[in-house]
Amino acid sequence: MLKLLHAPLTYCVRQSLKINVTKENYQRIFSCLFCNNVSEQKSKIDEEVAKLLALKAQLGDGPAPKFQLKTPKGTRDYDAKQMAVREKVFNCVIECFKRHGASTLDTPVFELKETLTNKYGEDSKLIYDLKDQGGEMLSLRYDLTVPFARYMAMTKSQNIKRYHIAKVYRRDNPAMTRGRYREFYQCDFDIAGQYDPMIPDAECLRIVSEILSGLDLGEYVIKVNDRRILDGVFDVCGCPSDKFRSACSAVDKLDKMPWEDVKAEMMEKGLTEETTDKIGTYVQLSGGIDLIEKLLTDESLLKSKCAVQGLTDMKQLFNYLEIFQVIDKASFDLSLARGLDYYTGAIFEAVLMNSNTANEKERVKGETVGVGSVAGGGRYDNLVGSFDPKGRSVPCVGVSIGVERIFSILEAQMKRDGQKLRTNETQVYVASPQKGFLQERMKIVTELWNSNIKAETSYKKNPKMLNQLQECEESGIPLVIIIASGELESGVVKIRSVTSREETTVQRENMVNELQSRLSSCNGTEE
Amino acid sequence: MLKLLHAPLTYCVRQSLKINVTKENYQRIFSCLFCNNVSEQKSKIDEEVAKLLALKAQLGDGPAPKFQLKTPKGTRDYDAKQMAVREKVFNCVIECFKRHGASTLDTPVFELKETLTNKYGEDSKLIYDLKDQGGEMLSLRYDLTVPFARYMAMTKSQNIKRYHIAKVYRRDNPAMTRGRYREFYQCDFDIAGQYDPMIPDAECLRIVSEILSGLDLGEYVIKVNDRRILDGVFDVCGCPSDKFRSACSAVDKLDKMPWEDVKAEMMEKGLTEETTDKIGTYVQLSGGIDLIEKLLTDESLLKSKCAVQGLTDMKQLFNYLEIFQVIDKASFDLSLARGLDYYTGAIFEAVLMNSNTANEKERVKGETVGVGSVAGGGRYDNLVGSFDPKGRSVPCVGVSIGVERIFSILEAQMKRDGQKLRTNETQVYVASPQKGFLQERMKIVTELWNSNIKAETSYKKNPKMLNQLQECEESGIPLVIIIASGELESGVVKIRSVTSREETTVQRENMVNELQSRLSSCNGTEE
Repeated sequence: MLKLLHAPLTYCVRQSLKINVTKENYQRIFSCLFCNNVSEQKSKIDEEVAKLLALKAQLGDGPAPKFQLKTPKGTRDYDAKQMAVREKVFNCVIECFKRHGASTLDTPVFELKETLTNKYGEDSKLIYDLKDQGGEMLSLRYDLTVPFARYMAMTKSQNIKRYHIAKVYRRDNPAMTRGRYREFYQCDFDIAGQYDPMIPDAECLRIVSEILSGLDLGEYVIKVNDRRILDGVFDVCGCPSDKFRSACSAVDKLDKMPWEDVKAEMMEKGLTEETTDKIGTYVQLSGGIDLIEKLLTDESLLKSKCAVQGLTDMKQLFNYLEIFQVIDKASFDLSLARGLDYYTGAIFEAVLMNSNTANEKERVKGETVGVGSVAGGGRYDNLVGSFDPKGRSVPCVGVSIGVERIFSILEAQMKRDGQKLRTNETQVYVASPQKGFLQERMKIVTELWNSNIKAETSYKKNPKMLNQLQECEESGIPLVIIIASGELESGVVKIRSVTSREETTVQRENMVNELQSRLSSCNGTEE
Repeated sequence: MLKLLHAPLTYCVRQSLKINVTKENYQRIFSCLFCNNVSEQKSKIDEEVAKLLALKAQLGDGPAPKFQLKTPKGTRDYDAKQMAVREKVFNCVIECFKRHGASTLDTPVFELKETLTNKYGEDSKLIYDLKDQGGEMLSLRYDLTVPFARYMAMTKSQNIKRYHIAKVYRRDNPAMTRGRYREFYQCDFDIAGQYDPMIPDAECLRIVSEILSGLDLGEYVIKVNDRRILDGVFDVCGCPSDKFRSACSAVDKLDKMPWEDVKAEMMEKGLTEETTDKIGTYVQLSGGIDLIEKLLTDESLLKSKCAVQGLTDMKQLFNYLEIFQVIDKASFDLSLARGLDYYTGAIFEAVLMNSNTANEKERVKGETVGVGSVAGGGRYDNLVGSFDPKGRSVPCVGVSIGVERIFSILEAQMKRDGQKLRTNETQVYVASPQKGFLQERMKIVTELWNSNIKAETSYKKNPKMLNQLQECEESGIPLVIIIASGELESGVVKIRSVTSREETTVQRENMVNELQSRLSSCNGTEE
């Protein structure tokens, strides 16, 4: 068996290229031979041959192959500044989730491959699989919703209000200049449980508005619709039910192309002009509770049971949004469709009105889906049931905050305004203009740590005073303790304010108290 | 080429088993055929045949194959309670890192495979590889230190003080009952930069002691040693330099086996009895600054330049530990060796003295490495240089907090003491004993959110009073606002303390103020 297999390989690959083919290359070649599509096979073989030839060239008389010092394609390190922005955003988001009583869960970064199968439609090709090293077949998570549904089914939980902030993975074509990566954060809040209609849904919208207002991202609108209303519209306009999803995806593009183009796409997908035009009269509508009430008297729509149910719930939702004080941010928008298949009821998406620099460019190019979209979600009542062996379902509604886009916007804002975010929280730096003060500096810094003051001192025995003060200015440390021989002997130290450069002499034994009162009077960061 | 390859496969596998072999199975079989070891090949083939036969059986008249509702082997979900413990530990740890002026970085969960190559010795077989889906060869990170060194070299950073808390991945044989998983948190703090000797090293030890004391884990000792001292000891005792590392790994076992067994292992590894006995006289020593000074007069050791350097620095370190007030926790222990190859100077490990339940069991079994070890680290001056094309190095010292073990200990403690940790932070629940109060409850909860009070109300239109109060008791919510028709009309509401069951009537317009003062007087959680 071994010989039989080795023969053709030796013949086809090793002999023709005259190089040592590694195990990995063999496997790569094999895997391409099992592709279904012949032209895909051919181009993969070409690709492999090119790689092998490059390898051969490297093995020749050229210089030793260079080690690649980089992160994988579509990923990046987050440096201290980027992490500071992330921490700020996460703190705001988590504070909001906690204000609404949420707990948090975590799931593994990989799942059994079959857990993710049939969940993402044609996007499944973007799932990262782990190599088969024996044992189970595994894939990296693609979002946080499917693992959450798997968790709910597995633990047989009946209700929970949870948030989950974690990275997800998609082998997408990265457009890193536009903030799209293969590894990125998702930030989800979901309410699972059997409750009275639209109450949790309304709270999700309230949460979106608290977060967007809290982060000060400018004006925004939260578009709201319901899958049942859309399905009802398609139905009464004469769209066959097997075309609902493709009609949906065409309608979803109305926010970035004119109706004429959407109409053309729908007709291309096999809808008649009459049906398309009828659909057009509905999906171009948007408004508030008036529109909902008007549609509830629309004779044609009243024929669809699911549209009526959707509209009745939508009216209820808008009533709750008024109580929750988010009504002025909400817009009932019949063109909102959302991509994912698993939504079953209310859907929503928050869009920024005044696009910032980062968005402006995107809008001009018109390349991205959901321009300015910074949050989205909806109700998915059947997903947990798809995991339960007995099909027991748990109704869920949730929202995902588009934190990556928010990071880009805030980073652009800060760059534009020349704002500087601190990357550490040090409150006091212990310095000395004289040599031989290392041990004294270490004693003081210990005293500060003991008093829970964030403090640093130079790791050099005899640092220059200028360097010590520069360190404070660069990292935004507000206060400096300065020690010197004369003063130390008379039992005093100096406290210097970095921004005002004012120096005050205090008794050594009052140092900690003095620092604490100056720090607490200005929120822990001074001036 | 296709036909040539398919022929033997069809012949050998498909025909003999008479079932449809999937692409994945073909690949699995191929990969085993390229193993170097013949018996490994055979057993892998047997394994594959067994899998295929099992698959065949499933495809027969048996029931449809069941969907597996589980997390991957060696992984787990963290539920709300487990996350609450983690949050508590991380908060304490992060607070300490920030008190010492650290910023934070993040790196991708996967790296180029070559980045991890040759970094972990024989443990490299535990690295998770991603499937080759075209493009780069990728692996999941195995620790946080190698990605950090890669980052330092890539960004050409000269110095940084950073922490990184993230999950790492090892295809280890999981011993989940003992808290060992394939996915687990690491929690690293490192100081990189060219500084005067032992100052950053001393701060790492101070950090370990702040964290262990802060988490109230009981008595602990921080063992300290230096790779240069160990190497010097081996050298002057006549151990050949190519046996340093294996002697090291034998010595490292002295904390869990008697000297006689360690001696036997060393002799098995080819050391003479004379050499071994000489080594034994050193590595069984432990103590404080006295021992360091004694060794600095040891005629034999003085012959080793690197031992003298190590001892001189160790004396300096103990001097700094005294200033940093951690001297009573530190023990100079010549048996401490640490597994990793990349350490170049000081090494340390913190061990709990009073083993808790979880550890007790382990100690009896004697199965785990480093019983009771909850933190470890050391100096690694050459790792960054191994990534730099020009070999420029950045000296580093760091410590890793064993948070997974700390989680297990705290969870066992809480279970033993019947302690309950809240999974949410809700401060006020809005309830009503009467029907028809949903909208009123929603109005009040909105007012509370607007005032930044963490608040919830039932998602049911007409919940039972008992259920509402039960909800508060179960999730530890301290205060309830109770509204009812009579009171509401006369402009008052009741505030109920959940633990004392006392109720106070307050004016509706004073409600928020009253709540805020009661919450602030007891740290946001009341009684």
